[in-house]
Amino acid sequence: MSIAVLRQKILEKENPTVAGLDARLEYIPEHIVKESYGAFGQTLEGAADAMLRFNKGLIDCFRDIVPAVKPQLAYYERLGWPGMRAFYETVRYARGKGLYVIADGKRNDIGSTAEAYADAYLGAVRVGETELSPFPCDGLTINAYLGEDGVGPFVRMLRDNKKSAFVLVKTSNPSSGEFQNRLLEGKPLYERVAEKVAAWGEECMTDCGFSELGAVVGATYPEEQKAVRALLPKAWFLVPGYGAQGATAKDIRNAFLPDGTGAIVNSSRGILCAWKKTGKDGADYQEAARAECLRMRDDIASAIGWRA
Amino acid sequence: MSIAVLRQKILEKENPTVAGLDARLEYIPEHIVKESYGAFGQTLEGAADAMLRFNKGLIDCFRDIVPAVKPQLAYYERLGWPGMRAFYETVRYARGKGLYVIADGKRNDIGSTAEAYADAYLGAVRVGETELSPFPCDGLTINAYLGEDGVGPFVRMLRDNKKSAFVLVKTSNPSSGEFQNRLLEGKPLYERVAEKVAAWGEECMTDCGFSELGAVVGATYPEEQKAVRALLPKAWFLVPGYGAQGATAKDIRNAFLPDGTGAIVNSSRGILCAWKKTGKDGADYQEAARAECLRMRDDIASAIGWRA
Repeated sequence: MSIAVLRQKILEKENPTVAGLDARLEYIPEHIVKESYGAFGQTLEGAADAMLRFNKGLIDCFRDIVPAVKPQLAYYERLGWPGMRAFYETVRYARGKGLYVIADGKRNDIGSTAEAYADAYLGAVRVGETELSPFPCDGLTINAYLGEDGVGPFVRMLRDNKKSAFVLVKTSNPSSGEFQNRLLEGKPLYERVAEKVAAWGEECMTDCGFSELGAVVGATYPEEQKAVRALLPKAWFLVPGYGAQGATAKDIRNAFLPDGTGAIVNSSRGILCAWKKTGKDGADYQEAARAECLRMRDDIASAIGWRA
Repeated sequence: MSIAVLRQKILEKENPTVAGLDARLEYIPEHIVKESYGAFGQTLEGAADAMLRFNKGLIDCFRDIVPAVKPQLAYYERLGWPGMRAFYETVRYARGKGLYVIADGKRNDIGSTAEAYADAYLGAVRVGETELSPFPCDGLTINAYLGEDGVGPFVRMLRDNKKSAFVLVKTSNPSSGEFQNRLLEGKPLYERVAEKVAAWGEECMTDCGFSELGAVVGATYPEEQKAVRALLPKAWFLVPGYGAQGATAKDIRNAFLPDGTGAIVNSSRGILCAWKKTGKDGADYQEAARAECLRMRDDIASAIGWRA
């Protein structure tokens, strides 16, 4: 679905946040893990089943208040092909519940290989007479180090298929400046990447005023957010780094436009591990996650002036 | 397995090349596809089965002459989770036949997420009381845009687990210069990345004189190969772009050290699609692929002075 749909869902729920579905096994309450191991043994199938059931429980508990989820592919790949099956089932379940699904894969390659990634996550594959969607997501994060040959195939998919992608511009980690903040012909590399995102994004504009091509801009760098926002007034920002990585609601204000649109803030651990703070062994993981989603919604919405 | 093992296999077979296992459905001979669709229908399972059987047939035909294979993850992800199962089975089959397996995934993320990728492809995962290897590869390609936080988790895995990784330094595609060749504080970005690879690589040196941390350097850019080689005398280079992308054997000489070690050249389409040039509808795909592997071996070996 188009970035216009994400925008609509955010406005309807008055909630510019996305829940990361990045479960490590140690984030999953023991009663779920035990049941899955009981059914499938201490195998990757068992671990992947626990992850899927945890994801479904989380989606059920916050689907009326949260507009989007962002499964991080690394944690599914970490459970092998059964993990990738759990990813597929998670995507289908989330979309079935009306959530916008952004696959966080930071994919990158060139030409027909970049096309293969675009087919996998945002498109379809012809198998004999049939067309199949391998992983039917709405959006995907991508890395632009390879330039136009790497990003172009994604942009064409966004335009033709009304999906979104988010290019890594300025990442939230402490060492992101190692390359990204050094001067490339007089401007920081992340600004040079943002300039290219602006140009590529023109090829997949939507009626709602935003491009299908967005940008990843870390919550931990408010000054860089401001610089990227100036270069990319029409890009939706995906903002990681809130919560566990140390950024607060006021650190993310520069990512938003004055009307409070234009960005979506991610939290993963804060939501997934909320149950660890209640002292109830995870029996209440849904209540705890929902409470954290509400707290985060109100925190961000206040910071951008949507609430008093 | 360590980069030292790859070096040994290359020397034993006198063949510094790697066969890309990047099958699109249209590269697979019809008799294989038909049989797989017959068994599994026109489904992702059927397509993945065809890919796996094609891969096994290829491995069988060149395993005594080729030291390594490089499956490109995008083409497996393109077939959904059944494709990832075919990837897993391909990796196991190739290693069982004594081949070194480099997963071409260009993965990148930070901290514990980068660790999750390292676990998935180069390490192991604890599930209850057991340790499982999700995708038991020997090497993985990675992207360094996120800096030390992104690369460090891989480097620690290489050191502890004796595996290899190859950082994208200068890619083979036409637009790779868009960012990579622009000057970052006076030097091309790809040289700045190479400088970092040299520093990170010191943390995972092997007894054979090479680091477990190698570099991806495109065959299509001989001058850049020379510059990167000067900065990275102890890194093994993975060299894409030979053949279908237009580079010839003489274009790759600068990637090698004077003794002809230090690099491995990839070919994918040339090998996978060799049968398309014989006019026999793919019945002879193994003979055609083997002949192309031998031709390529001799072509590269001559160019680097291993053969008269």
